[in-house]
Order: sequence, then C-alpha cells, then structure tokens
Amino acid sequence: MPELRYDPIRQRWTIISIERGRRPHEYVTEKEEVKKVDSCPFDYGNEQRTPPEIYAISDQPRQPNTPGWKVRVVPNKYPALRIEGELKREGVGLFDVVSGIGAHEVIIETPDHNREMSDRTPEEIALVLKAYKERLLDLRKDTRFRYILVFKNHGKDAGASLSHPHSQLIATPIFPPVVKAELVSAREHYLRKERCIFCDIIKQELTLRDRIVWESDKYVLWEPFASSFPFETWLFPKYHSHDFALLPDEELYDLAVALKEMLVRIKALLNDPPYNMVLHTAPPPHPRPGHADYWETLEFDFHWHIELIPRITKIAGFEWGSGLHINPTPPEEAAKYLREVEI
Amino acid sequence: MPELRYDPIRQRWTIISIERGRRPHEYVTEKEEVKKVDSCPFDYGNEQRTPPEIYAISDQPRQPNTPGWKVRVVPNKYPALRIEGELKREGVGLFDVVSGIGAHEVIIETPDHNREMSDRTPEEIALVLKAYKERLLDLRKDTRFRYILVFKNHGKDAGASLSHPHSQLIATPIFPPVVKAELVSAREHYLRKERCIFCDIIKQELTLRDRIVWESDKYVLWEPFASSFPFETWLFPKYHSHDFALLPDEELYDLAVALKEMLVRIKALLNDPPYNMVLHTAPPPHPRPGHADYWETLEFDFHWHIELIPRITKIAGFEWGSGLHINPTPPEEAAKYLREVEI
Repeated sequence: MPELRYDPIRQRWTIISIERGRRPHEYVTEKEEVKKVDSCPFDYGNEQRTPPEIYAISDQPRQPNTPGWKVRVVPNKYPALRIEGELKREGVGLFDVVSGIGAHEVIIETPDHNREMSDRTPEEIALVLKAYKERLLDLRKDTRFRYILVFKNHGKDAGASLSHPHSQLIATPIFPPVVKAELVSAREHYLRKERCIFCDIIKQELTLRDRIVWESDKYVLWEPFASSFPFETWLFPKYHSHDFALLPDEELYDLAVALKEMLVRIKALLNDPPYNMVLHTAPPPHPRPGHADYWETLEFDFHWHIELIPRITKIAGFEWGSGLHINPTPPEEAAKYLREVEI
Repeated sequence: MPELRYDPIRQRWTIISIERGRRPHEYVTEKEEVKKVDSCPFDYGNEQRTPPEIYAISDQPRQPNTPGWKVRVVPNKYPALRIEGELKREGVGLFDVVSGIGAHEVIIETPDHNREMSDRTPEEIALVLKAYKERLLDLRKDTRFRYILVFKNHGKDAGASLSHPHSQLIATPIFPPVVKAELVSAREHYLRKERCIFCDIIKQELTLRDRIVWESDKYVLWEPFASSFPFETWLFPKYHSHDFALLPDEELYDLAVALKEMLVRIKALLNDPPYNMVLHTAPPPHPRPGHADYWETLEFDFHWHIELIPRITKIAGFEWGSGLHINPTPPEEAAKYLREVEI
C-alpha cells in the first residue's frame, strides 16, 4: 500500500511507494552532457567575457577581472531580474504587477573547469560558502529585495547551461511562494509553542534515526519524511540558527565537510546525477512598514538549511496539475542506501 | 525590464521577460522519442495484457477485453494509489499520514497507435471526453475520494512512458495542493463579491483581447496573464459551469472542437512539443461532516477548465527552491503567435 505523507513545513503532501521502493540503480539513465565549448567564459584568461566582477576571493594581490582568483562572482549575462530601475507595485485590472527589479549573479566556484564541488576539498568548498555569505550580506543592504535565493544546478537535466562549476543567486522584490510557505509554517508553530519547528523535527529525526544519512557534531543530513523526490536530502545545523549569512567564517569549514558528505554520497550512489541544491535561509532583516513585528521573532522560528534534489524522475501532468509528487523510493530506504555508501 | 505577475487564482508569481520574448522556434530542441515497442499493450488484440477493462465505448456489440472498442479504460498496471483497503488518517510524531487509497486509470483514447489527439476529428475527441465524464461520474460515488484529477502526458519529456495515445486519471483521498489553492481563491472572491472569479477574468480577457488565442460561441482559449510556462494555454467555457462531469453529452462536440484548436495550434507552432494537459473541475459533491456548507456555494464559485503546458523549458534549482517560474515569452506575444497559426 502506498502512503500519503504531509510535510508540515512546506505544507504539502507526497505519495510515497512503500512496499518495494525503486532502488538506486533503477534510476540511472543515459545522461545528457552539457555542450562542450572550445573556450569557457568562466576559465582563467576569459574574465573579459563576463560582466565585470562583483566579488572575488584570491590569496594573492590581483587586478579585478584578471586571473588569479579562487572564487569569482559576476552578474548573470542574461539576468532574470534587473538591478537598475524603480520598484513599482501596481494593479492591472484583476491582476498585480511588480517591476522586475532584482539581482541575478553567478558564483564561479573554482577556476578549474572540471573540478565539481564533490571533487574539491572542504577548504575549497568553504571558499564558495564564504562567497555565498558575503553576497548575501552585501545584497541585503538593498531594501528593495524581500528575499535572496542561492542555488546550484548541476548537469544539463538540472538546468545547467554551462558545465564549469558555478552557483547562482537571485534576489527578488517579493517573497517566493516556497519560502513563504516555510516561513508561515515556522511562524505558526512558534506562535503556538514558542519552539522552532525545525528544531523539533531535528530532535525527532535524531531519535528515530531511520532517515538519518550522516551527522557530525554540528550538522546532520537526512531524507525528509515527506520527500517529494527520491533521494532528496536535507542538510541542517543541529543547533538553532536562523540566518546562514551570520555564520562566522571559522564555522564554514565544518559546513563544507557536511556538504561534501552529501554530494559525494549522492554522486557515488546515483552515478553523478543532475541535481539542484538550494539554500533556505531567513529573509533579509528589513522590517516593512506595518509588518515590523514580523521580523521580531524570525530569529527564534526560522532555521537555515540546504536542500538537494537529484533530478532523476520526470515531472508529468499529474504533478503539475495537482502539486502532489509521487516518490517511488521511501526516504527510509533512500537513507539506508546513502548511509551505506563507502567513501 | 522583466515583470513579476501575480496569478490571483493559483496565488503565485511568475517572472515574465518583457522586452524581447523568446520566439517559438527558439524553443525547438531535439526530441527524445518514446521507446518503440514491437507490440503495444494498448493495440487491438492485446487487451489481455492490460488489467481487465473498467469502461469502453464501442458502436458494435463486443465482449469486454476484446477488439472493436473506440475508447477503452483500464486500471493502471503500476498504480500510484490503490483502490482496495481502508482509508486511515493518522499522526506519526510531528507528521501526518493518509493511507494510499485511490484510483489510477488509463484512458486509451483510440485503437490507432499513431493517431494523436490533434490528428483526430472532433467526433473522435468527443468520445474521449465522454470517457472522462463517465469515469468521473462513476468514481465520485466512492466517498473516500476528495478529488479526481484527469490529465494527459504527451511525449517522453512530458512523462509519457508509452507512445500509444492515452490519458490518465488519479483519484486522491486528499485535496491536491494546486486544486486547493484554486478552490480557496475562488471561494474568497465569491464570499467577498458573490461573483465567480473565473467569470470575472474571462470577461476581462475578452475585453482586452491581447491574450485571446481563439473563441467560439461557447469556448475560449487564452494565454494566462501570469503564465508560468511559455505558451501555457487555458481552455474555458465562456458560460459559468463548475463541474465538467455535468456537461450534457451533446455539448461535448463543441468542447472537442475547442480542444482540437488548442492542440493543433500548439503542435504546428512548436513542432509537436511534449505537453501536459490537465482538467480542472470541481471536487466530487461529498459534503464532509463539519464542512457541509463548503459544498453549498461550490457551484457558484468554481469554473471548470483545461490547462495545457508545453514542456519546452527546463525546471531548475531556482524554480524548485522558490516556487517562482521564469517565463521567457510574454503571454501577449505567445497569443499573437498562436492566433496567427494557419490551420
């Protein structure tokens, strides 16, 4: 008998096949390779082919837009939203329109075209996390933005159009619906119980243990109870912390170790699948007029984390039409497979 | 400047590129073909290879599970939900579980393996609509089901695993989230204004006309203002009607004409793209204890319709993480292209 499971954070149901879950090797299909290019705009020496850099990490003195960097952040050449312009909110008949003000940046994670995140050392990964943090801290000075979403697409089927390892961020002038649903659930729970819903779930998962993949002193990886996708994996700090951007630099290394664990296990088990990775963190602390009290309890009720979705199933009419997902591998089985990966 | 547009029905934002929309031919990529099979379980003579039929349309006397049918409905061999068993709703720690009771059926639309819906006559398409209707009327007798979703996946990239033209339906013991969002928006509008929100939008679209693709006396096709996907197309009855299953048989022909218009235009413009099509109709009229009044106004506030999504863009980390979609072709341009298709 399959089972419908409800995710109290994202407020949505998933259909989970229970009796015999689909095993990892049954998902592995021919991979579409990202098109090879003769010369990559993200390689050393091609810095002039991207828009001028916004931020870079380097351990040597260098001129902007020249080689020598370790991580480099540039505006997206084809941005989904634009940084310049006036933010207008208007009604159009029955509809609402907000001007497409935002930021769309590319975080070039390494100069090495072929060194995916899972291949790098925790020290190298920590530099990417440092870039995420610095860009979040800088962009949140702009009070036009309600949210800044950091994400990574790996592989063509996950939406990556260039194979050089990179992450992206998009700042939006509205709360994205998925983020809003999480914030609303966390707030409702807090107002009722004066506890963080994520902390409650972490405690429950660490007690039950059947969905835990890996843990260290500070971080834990698990397969969520109502996983929408097979082998969907969440990375949480075990301690309460609402805002990723407030993490001290010296703690980024431990997080990088946890992130590498997640990526290496997923890569080994599912034959380097395409994936999407998303950082969920608290919105920038800009109390809006009339909503000032909203931000007052945010530090108690939200809990930053990273979600990874391997893109190994197709999304069809049922999923789009219903918003329900069908997950053929129960998270308990997925966790067992991921725990048993030999590294 | 791009624009963020809000859909008051689905309660979600979309980012729409405004200045220079991506044109139809820029979406056309190599198509993945559905795997050829030597012998198809949906062809004449192979009726024994599907589970026993539930319903069929034939203009000649025939035994069940033999050739001679025009439309044939069978249970899905690999159902997402199961018809047998007891419906239990239980709490598991912080989570909620509902047993996976439901129905999952396949509507084999024609015996002709290669005759896609867009190639058929309106008379033939009307038979498929008749099968949708009869299955909805039959399944809603089962009070365990809160909703019955009818949908069609065309092409491998849209999730079709067999190329023989077929639709599917899945009955669920919960309200799927997308359906629920629509029902909630429609209800809020009705309670405030005593009008159907869909009727209001139809009136506005028919006045503005820039997003209208085609219309007949009774039906209208348009590109929604906050289209999440390029060339997303909606088919609505112009008159108020909440429940597709209550449509008299003699009106199915006119609907089939409208449906064919939609499919033929999409096929011609986008080179037979993969697509998902979903019927949105009112939930079965089973007032739940404690919620009886909910169903009392449903016939006034809901409005059935059909939504079509061409699957020509990739869904990446930003979309999954935010719930926001980026649509590179404004619906006004999409409508113009679709209007100008010569048939």
